[in-house]
Amino acid sequence: MLTPGAARIVESVGEGVTEVQPGDHVIPCYQAECRECKFCKSGKTNLCGKVRGATGAGVMMNDRKSRFSINGKPIYHFMGTSTFSQYTVVHDVSVAKIDPQAPLDKVCLLGCGVPTGLGAVWNTAKVEPGSIVAVFGLGTVGLAVAEGAKAAGASRVIGIDIDPKKFDRAKNFGVTEFVNPKDHDKPIQQVLVDLTDGGVDYSFECIGNVSVMRAALECCHKGWGTSVIVGVAASGQEISTRPFQLVTGRVWKGTAFGGFKSRSQVPWLVDKYMKKEIKVDEYVTHNMTLGEINEAFRYMHGGDCLRCVLKMQD
Amino acid sequence: MLTPGAARIVESVGEGVTEVQPGDHVIPCYQAECRECKFCKSGKTNLCGKVRGATGAGVMMNDRKSRFSINGKPIYHFMGTSTFSQYTVVHDVSVAKIDPQAPLDKVCLLGCGVPTGLGAVWNTAKVEPGSIVAVFGLGTVGLAVAEGAKAAGASRVIGIDIDPKKFDRAKNFGVTEFVNPKDHDKPIQQVLVDLTDGGVDYSFECIGNVSVMRAALECCHKGWGTSVIVGVAASGQEISTRPFQLVTGRVWKGTAFGGFKSRSQVPWLVDKYMKKEIKVDEYVTHNMTLGEINEAFRYMHGGDCLRCVLKMQD
Ligand SMILES: NC(=O)c1ccc[n+]([C@@H]2O[C@H](COP(=O)([O-])OP(=O)(O)OC[C@H]3O[C@@H](n4cnc5c(N)ncnc54)[C@H](O)[C@@H]3O)[C@@H](O)[C@H]2O)c1
Ligand SMILES: NC(=O)c1ccc[n+]([C@@H]2O[C@H](COP(=O)([O-])OP(=O)(O)OC[C@H]3O[C@@H](n4cnc5c(N)ncnc54)[C@H](O)[C@@H]3O)[C@@H](O)[C@H]2O)c1
Repeated sequence: MLTPGAARIVESVGEGVTEVQPGDHVIPCYQAECRECKFCKSGKTNLCGKVRGATGAGVMMNDRKSRFSINGKPIYHFMGTSTFSQYTVVHDVSVAKIDPQAPLDKVCLLGCGVPTGLGAVWNTAKVEPGSIVAVFGLGTVGLAVAEGAKAAGASRVIGIDIDPKKFDRAKNFGVTEFVNPKDHDKPIQQVLVDLTDGGVDYSFECIGNVSVMRAALECCHKGWGTSVIVGVAASGQEISTRPFQLVTGRVWKGTAFGGFKSRSQVPWLVDKYMKKEIKVDEYVTHNMTLGEINEAFRYMHGGDCLRCVLKMQD
Repeated sequence: MLTPGAARIVESVGEGVTEVQPGDHVIPCYQAECRECKFCKSGKTNLCGKVRGATGAGVMMNDRKSRFSINGKPIYHFMGTSTFSQYTVVHDVSVAKIDPQAPLDKVCLLGCGVPTGLGAVWNTAKVEPGSIVAVFGLGTVGLAVAEGAKAAGASRVIGIDIDPKKFDRAKNFGVTEFVNPKDHDKPIQQVLVDLTDGGVDYSFECIGNVSVMRAALECCHKGWGTSVIVGVAASGQEISTRPFQLVTGRVWKGTAFGGFKSRSQVPWLVDKYMKKEIKVDEYVTHNMTLGEINEAFRYMHGGDCLRCVLKMQD
């Protein structure tokens, strides 16, 4: 996947901006954190609402206009960060100031998929030691889930992917056993229930496939199994299941950016990386330049690539 | 609703039964509690698994046979309790021994719907003071949810029913405002989101209607709103929603018997009733005899009746 994750140096700041100044190293965050809105103050979510209306529309909040143009025609912002460009303009609530020692061409990954996977385990599911965990999809997000589950003390981390090429690498991220749905005639939820004496304690869908989301819920143990949707499905698609799945104690949740508060917690994740407590380098399988971006997309569809870091200057 | 809730006096006990003896007052519980199985020991659920295979099949566990017959033909047990009869036979793990002072023709309600509603709030959702709560369906279960929410300190308890006859009575159970979906052109989830500046903190479906289950989830506040399915849908029906509802922080759960451990906690509920800390009498709108059971069913479909207590001796 090509993600909006990025790490940059502040070039200039607008009026009233106090928390960062030119020269600061920052990670632009598609999930803002204003610390003032109903969401930020709730203590229950990382989904700050302050600039969402503007970033959703691809504009800046004060004048509802874009800061990019080509030949006089406006180009809209992307996910509040617009990181596929040499220079970008973002809201002050959308940048996390980080340790200037951290290598930008690595910690850029801490702007998207890696925190999402770790946080899905630590913040959203709150996996406890000894738990049995199933991870559907072993791309970057799924591997980060596995890494988070291992750190949380999971006793078994079962990786499920239809591409067996993913299995070998996944061992380094904490996956303890593998299931390829293509090797089985039974529905994958049944395969997992059989493998685990009744179902897993926690499952994570890291693909974006609504049938897999259903399977991920239904492979959970009756009474307590919790399934977290991390993957983003194509728009219009719906999840479904029999309500009895929930009445008998399974819990269906989801996560956005792993529940991490971006400005407050991304710097903490950078520090953890600097202390070698979390992996980042291991997810970077390709390094290319902005000029090669279309080729980078092809690599990612190929399945060998986890994350491709683009240098902005060719 | 006619429920399997009942309260009885032990007539005799089988070999090896130590916790109850003839003369004890008990509430038969469709959800058993063995204290030995994986479920009971998990500390995470009330869904004991010990006798489920047998009670689901309508038989006793030791010989997989029924204890009832008519003209030599076996009649199967019902929900592990078979309470529509003068005498019944149940597993020892399916009876809760209660205060012999408690009036049996009232506390029989503590074998089903009332604990389910209270527990949905206290155990499953864990509603906090100040929360905004929506209750879909104002039958006994919905009213018990309202009562539980009020006791938990909810600031608003919004009752939703398509039968306006339900509204007046519901005020006594803690419902603070009412919405009849028939009075609105907009989908009911939108009506509630508009009424609550973004959605409710907790919602409870107490009807058994899969479209209402969806609405109950979708009227929850982004970031944290939790919806609990309490109603039992017709078999084969499915719930659905867009996965984005969960990715943006809503949680979908369900509850069986409100999460209460039957043998351990039903006696505690009886004690709370005796101390006038929870309502029970108020849910009994009709008293009839077993001979009038078909008429009792008609009353309940009429909508005036909450719970009809049947005396077993005419
Ligand atoms: N919720 C969030 O905040 C958030 C943040 C980042 C990414 N995401 C989403 O997470 C998902 C995963 O991202 P990624 O970068 O790891 O993607 P990826 O494409 O690298 O990985 C997906 C993996 O799933 C496997 N797969 C595909 N179909 C499968 C199936 N039917 N059964 C089993 N495995 C299957 C693929 O082989 C691949 O290994 C995407 O949908 C992405 O949009 C969500
Ligand atoms: N999960 C459990 O452990 C458990 C335990 C007991 C009961 N139940 C279930 O709880 C549900 C409620 O039980 P009850 O005894 O309170 O039932 P009830 O029939 O007395 O009450 C249902 C209420 O819903 C209202 N209603 C019907 N359709 C509606 C709609 N579309 N929108 C809004 N309101 C609507 C009715 O007017 C009625 O007031 C049932 O499905 C029952 O099987 C579940």
